[in-house]
Amino acid sequence: MAPKYAPSLRARLTLVAFLLQVAFIVIFAFCVKIEDDGKEKVQNFIYSYANFQDIHVMLFLGFGFLGTFLVRYGFSSSAFNLLVAAMAVQWATILKGFLLSHHSNWVIRIQLKSLVDAELCASSTLVAMGTIHGKTNPVQLLIFALIEVTGFVLNQWIIQTLFQPGPQTHWLYSIVLINIFGALFGMMTSCLLFRSKIQQKFEKEKVGRRTGLFAMFGTLFLWMFWPSLNAALGRNFTAICGTYLSLAVSAVTAMAVSVLSSSKGKINLVHVQSSMLAGGIAVGAVVTLSPAPWIAMTIGFCATLLSTLGFRYMKKHMLFAFDFNDTLGVLCAHALPGILGWFAQLILQLTSISHNLIAVRFVLHHICILLITVFVSLVMGSITGILLKCSFWKPQRHNKCYDDQAYWEFPHLLVDK
Amino acid sequence: MAPKYAPSLRARLTLVAFLLQVAFIVIFAFCVKIEDDGKEKVQNFIYSYANFQDIHVMLFLGFGFLGTFLVRYGFSSSAFNLLVAAMAVQWATILKGFLLSHHSNWVIRIQLKSLVDAELCASSTLVAMGTIHGKTNPVQLLIFALIEVTGFVLNQWIIQTLFQPGPQTHWLYSIVLINIFGALFGMMTSCLLFRSKIQQKFEKEKVGRRTGLFAMFGTLFLWMFWPSLNAALGRNFTAICGTYLSLAVSAVTAMAVSVLSSSKGKINLVHVQSSMLAGGIAVGAVVTLSPAPWIAMTIGFCATLLSTLGFRYMKKHMLFAFDFNDTLGVLCAHALPGILGWFAQLILQLTSISHNLIAVRFVLHHICILLITVFVSLVMGSITGILLKCSFWKPQRHNKCYDDQAYWEFPHLLVDK
Amino acid sequence: MAPKYAPSLRARLTLVAFLLQVAFIVIFAFCVKIEDDGKEKVQNFIYSYANFQDIHVMLFLGFGFLGTFLVRYGFSSSAFNLLVAAMAVQWATILKGFLLSHHSNWVIRIQLKSLVDAELCASSTLVAMGTIHGKTNPVQLLIFALIEVTGFVLNQWIIQTLFQPGPQTHWLYSIVLINIFGALFGMMTSCLLFRSKIQQKFEKEKVGRRTGLFAMFGTLFLWMFWPSLNAALGRNFTAICGTYLSLAVSAVTAMAVSVLSSSKGKINLVHVQSSMLAGGIAVGAVVTLSPAPWIAMTIGFCATLLSTLGFRYMKKHMLFAFDFNDTLGVLCAHALPGILGWFAQLILQLTSISHNLIAVRFVLHHICILLITVFVSLVMGSITGILLKCSFWKPQRHNKCYDDQAYWEFPHLLVDK
Repeated sequence: MAPKYAPSLRARLTLVAFLLQVAFIVIFAFCVKIEDDGKEKVQNFIYSYANFQDIHVMLFLGFGFLGTFLVRYGFSSSAFNLLVAAMAVQWATILKGFLLSHHSNWVIRIQLKSLVDAELCASSTLVAMGTIHGKTNPVQLLIFALIEVTGFVLNQWIIQTLFQPGPQTHWLYSIVLINIFGALFGMMTSCLLFRSKIQQKFEKEKVGRRTGLFAMFGTLFLWMFWPSLNAALGRNFTAICGTYLSLAVSAVTAMAVSVLSSSKGKINLVHVQSSMLAGGIAVGAVVTLSPAPWIAMTIGFCATLLSTLGFRYMKKHMLFAFDFNDTLGVLCAHALPGILGWFAQLILQLTSISHNLIAVRFVLHHICILLITVFVSLVMGSITGILLKCSFWKPQRHNKCYDDQAYWEFPHLLVDK
Repeated sequence: MAPKYAPSLRARLTLVAFLLQVAFIVIFAFCVKIEDDGKEKVQNFIYSYANFQDIHVMLFLGFGFLGTFLVRYGFSSSAFNLLVAAMAVQWATILKGFLLSHHSNWVIRIQLKSLVDAELCASSTLVAMGTIHGKTNPVQLLIFALIEVTGFVLNQWIIQTLFQPGPQTHWLYSIVLINIFGALFGMMTSCLLFRSKIQQKFEKEKVGRRTGLFAMFGTLFLWMFWPSLNAALGRNFTAICGTYLSLAVSAVTAMAVSVLSSSKGKINLVHVQSSMLAGGIAVGAVVTLSPAPWIAMTIGFCATLLSTLGFRYMKKHMLFAFDFNDTLGVLCAHALPGILGWFAQLILQLTSISHNLIAVRFVLHHICILLITVFVSLVMGSITGILLKCSFWKPQRHNKCYDDQAYWEFPHLLVDK
Repeated sequence: MAPKYAPSLRARLTLVAFLLQVAFIVIFAFCVKIEDDGKEKVQNFIYSYANFQDIHVMLFLGFGFLGTFLVRYGFSSSAFNLLVAAMAVQWATILKGFLLSHHSNWVIRIQLKSLVDAELCASSTLVAMGTIHGKTNPVQLLIFALIEVTGFVLNQWIIQTLFQPGPQTHWLYSIVLINIFGALFGMMTSCLLFRSKIQQKFEKEKVGRRTGLFAMFGTLFLWMFWPSLNAALGRNFTAICGTYLSLAVSAVTAMAVSVLSSSKGKINLVHVQSSMLAGGIAVGAVVTLSPAPWIAMTIGFCATLLSTLGFRYMKKHMLFAFDFNDTLGVLCAHALPGILGWFAQLILQLTSISHNLIAVRFVLHHICILLITVFVSLVMGSITGILLKCSFWKPQRHNKCYDDQAYWEFPHLLVDK
C-alpha cells in the first residue's frame, strides 16, 4: 500500500541515522572530554548559558518553524529541522574540535563555548537546507548536513591557515559568513537537484491562513533573539542596540517595500517574514566595529530593501534562468544581506585606516576571504548536489514534493487502530 | 481587480512608513549617541539584558498573538503588531530622551534602560490598539501609535513637572499607568471610529478551534513573563512572588467566574485569556510596597472577578450605550484591573501613614495623578479619533473588517505564479 | 439546551475552584511569609531567577501544548493544564513548606527556591494528568491534582524520614522520581476510570495536520529547556552538556526507531514527540554523578529505544490487557526512561564503590526507594481512581470524550451575540 505513495525510507533512514549516531557516540567515547571550568567563574557561566540558550531556541524553534508556512509540509519542516540540527551539532563539535582548536593526543576538551560554536555551525546548515526543503528526503538531508558542516569548517580552517587572524576576528568571520556560505552552498545543490516536473505542483509551496501564523511564530523567535546571536562574541550594548534598531527598521521597511512592489497594493507575508531578518544578518558583519545606531539602522534599511525587492523580482528569474527553485528564498533572505553587510564592514573599516598601502592590503585581504568562501561553498554545494542526485537515496516522487504524506503516518491511513 | 476588495494602501502605507522611518534614522543620526557603560558592571548588564529580553518577548510575541483568535485576522494581528511596535519603540526612544531625561545640546544618550523604557511605552500603544483592531488599516495604526506614544510621554512629563516625584516613583507610575492610559485612549478613539454597519459582521470577531490556540500561546507568554515586567524596577523576590501568585489566582478565578456566569455552564476561552492577566496588572501597582503574598493574591482575585464579570455583562452594554466596540475587550482586561490596583495601592499606603494631614494630602495627590492620566488619555484619544475618521486614510470597507484579505496577498488570488 | 451535550459544570467547578482558592489565600495569609534574602547575593538571584523561568515556561507552555495534538481537545489541553498547574503550585508550596522544611509556629518562609520546588512538584501532576486527559472533567482534574501533589510530597517525606539523605540527595530524588511517580499514579487512576464504550471514539485521539504542529511546539519547549531542569540543582556544565547531548541522540533515535518499526516505513509524529524527551528523563538520574558525555549519550540512546518500541508495541497491549487507555503515552514516555535511568544510576554508582558490603547496602537502599515510590504511587493512584469514579463529579458523556465542546463556549452555539 505504501509504495503507491512514496518509496519507503525504512531501511535507508534507519541505517544511516543509526550508523551515524553510533559512530558519533564512539568518537565521543574516545575523543571528547568535558573541560570543567571549575566553580570560580559563576558569573561568566550564567552569562554564557543565557547566550547559549538564546541561540539554542533560535536553532531548534526559530529555524524549525520558519518553513512551516508550506501548507502540507509542517511536520517535515519542524521535525526534519530537529533531526538535521541534532546531527549537525554533534558532527560540528567533533570536527571543530579536531580542525580548529588545540587538542592533544586526539582528545578534544569541550566547554559551553564549544556547544555555542557548534550550534552556529549547525545554523549554517539550516540556512542551506531552506533551498532544498520539500524536494529531498530525510536521508538526503542528513548527508547534505554532514557535507555542509564539513565544508563550513573546512572554509574556516582555510581562512584561518591562510590569513592567521586573531581569535576575535576568526570568531567574527564565523558569524558573518554563516549566511553567505549556507545560502550559496544550498543554491548549488538545489540547482543540481532541480526537477522540472514539480513546477505545476507549486500550489503546495503556498502559504495558508494558519500555516502563515506558525511561520510567523518561528520568524519572530529568530527576530527577537537575533541581538543575542550578534552579541555572542561579547555581550556589549553597542552590538545589541545596533542589531535591535536595525531589526526594527527591517520590519517596517519589509512591509513598506512589499506593499509598494505588489501589483494589487497588498503585503506578501512570506516576503515580510524572510526580509525582516535582513537587518540582523547585515549588521552582524559590522557589530564588532561598534557602529553608531544610525549606521546600523541605515544598513538594515538597505539590506531589507535589497532583500524584499530580490524576493519580488529576482526569485522568479532565478527559477527560469538557472533552474534554481529556492523554497524559503534563502538567496534573497540570507546571501544578499550578508554580502551587503560584508561590504558595509569593508567601507566602515576603510574610513578608519589613514594609510593608503594598508588600506589596499586590507581591501584585498577582505575580498579574498569573501571569494574563498564563495568558491568553497559553490564547489562543495556542487559535489553534494551530484552525490544526492543518485537515485539510491530514493527521493520522493514529484507529486509528493512539499507533502508530509510521504514520510508521516496520518490517522486516516492507520488500519489497526 | 483589487479595488473590488479594498482600497489599495500602496501609496499611503509606503509613503507614511518610509517618511517616518527615514525621519527617525535622520534624528538618530544627529541626536542619539550610545552611552557606553563600560565593562565594569558585567553583572548589572546580564541582569538588565535578561529583563529587557523578557519584556521584548512580551511585546512582540505576547501582544502579537493576543489578537490572533479572530478567525480571519491572524496575519494582520501579528504583523501589524510588529509594525506598530517597531515604530513606537523608535519614537518613544526619541521622545522620552528629549522630554524626560537630561540631555545636552540636543544629544540623547541611550543605554539598555532606555530601550526597556521605550518598550514599556510601546506596550501602552499595543494595549490601546486592541480596541480598534480589525476596523482600521495599518496607516491609521501607525498614526494612532505615534499620537498614543506622544500622549503617554506627555502625560508622564505633566505628572513629573507638577508633582516632582523621585526617580523611583516616576518609573513606578509609568508601569502602572500604561494599562489605564492605553485602554482609555483606545476607548475614545474606538468610540469615534464606530461603524454601525459592521455589527452584522460579528461572526468574524469569533474564535475558532485553531485560532484560539494561537491566542492562548500569546497570552501564555504575557502571563509567564508578567513577573519580569512588574520586577523591571528592581528584581526583588517580593515583587516576583507576589505577581506570580496573583497570576496563579487569576487563572483559576477567571475560569471559575466564566463558567459561573455562563448560561450553559461552559467556559469562554476569550474571557479567560483576557482576564487571567488581570492579577498581574492590578498587582503591578502595589509591588513596590512589598505586599505580603496573601494581599497580592486577594488583589488578583478581586481584579479577575471584576474583569471577567465586566467581560460577560459590561462589554455588550458599552457597545449599545456608547457605540464602543472593543475588539480585544481592553477596557475590562486592562483599565478595570489597573484602576482597582491604583486604589489598592492608595489603601495600602494609607495604612502606613499615621498622620491625618499627610494622609489627606497623599490621597489628593494620588487621585490627581489618576485624574490627569484619565483626562489626558481621553482628550488625546478623541483627537486621534477625529483625525483618523477622515476618509483620506482609506479605511477598509465594512465587509472587509476583521479580514486579512484586505491587506495580504493570498495564494488563490495570485495570478502570475 | 446544554444538558443535551454535557452535564453542566457550573455549580461544581465554580464551587470547588472558589473553595480551594479562598482556602489557599487564607492559609497563605496566616502561614506564609516571604523570606527576604536581602540584596547581598544579586548574582545568585539572577541565576535562580533564570532557572525558575525556564522551569516556569516548561510547566505552563511545554506541558500545556503537549496534549494539543488531540484534534478536538486543544482548548482543554492547554487551559486545564494551566488551571491544574496554578492550583498544584499553590498547594505544593503549602504542603512542602509544612512537611519538608523547618518551620516555626506554623509559619512557612518561602523563597525563590520554594517556588522552583513547588513547580517541580506540579510537573509530576502534569505528567500524571497525561494518562487521563480527555476522559475527565476539570473538577475531577482539580481533585486528582490535589491528591497527586499530596502523594508526591508524602512519598518524599517517607523517603526523607526513613533514609535521612543529605539535602543534595533529597533534591535529586525529587527530580528523578517525578516522572516515575507521576506516570504510575496516573496509570492506576486511568485503569480504574476506564470506559470501554469510548473505544470506538478513538478517531478523536488522533493527530491532525495543524494540531501536530501545536504539540510540536510544546514538545520543543520541553526539549530545549530540559537541560535547565536537570541542572536545577547546580548549574554545572557537565549536567547541561550531558543532558543536551543525550536529548540530541534521543531526537535522532526516536525518528529512526519510529520509521524502522512502522509497517509502511513512515514516521509517527506522536511517537517522536513523546520519545524525544526520554533521553532527558533518563539522564536526569545520573547528572549529579558527572558522567562523561558518551555515557549520557548511550543512556539517551537506550532510553529512547525502549520508549519508542514501547509506544509501538506495548501501548496497545496495555489497553487490551489492563484496560489502561494512556492518552499521552505517559507510561512509555516517562515511566520506562525514568526506571532505566534509575538503574543506570545504580550501575554507575556501583562502579565507584570498591567495598562489597557497602555496595550491597547501597543496592538495597537504592531499590527500596524505588519500590516505596512505586508502592505509594500505585496506592494513591488507586484511591484517586475510586474517588473519581463516583458519578457525583459529572464526567462528560462517552461521546464527548476528547472533545472541547463539552466545556467551552463555541461561537456557533452562541445565541445572544
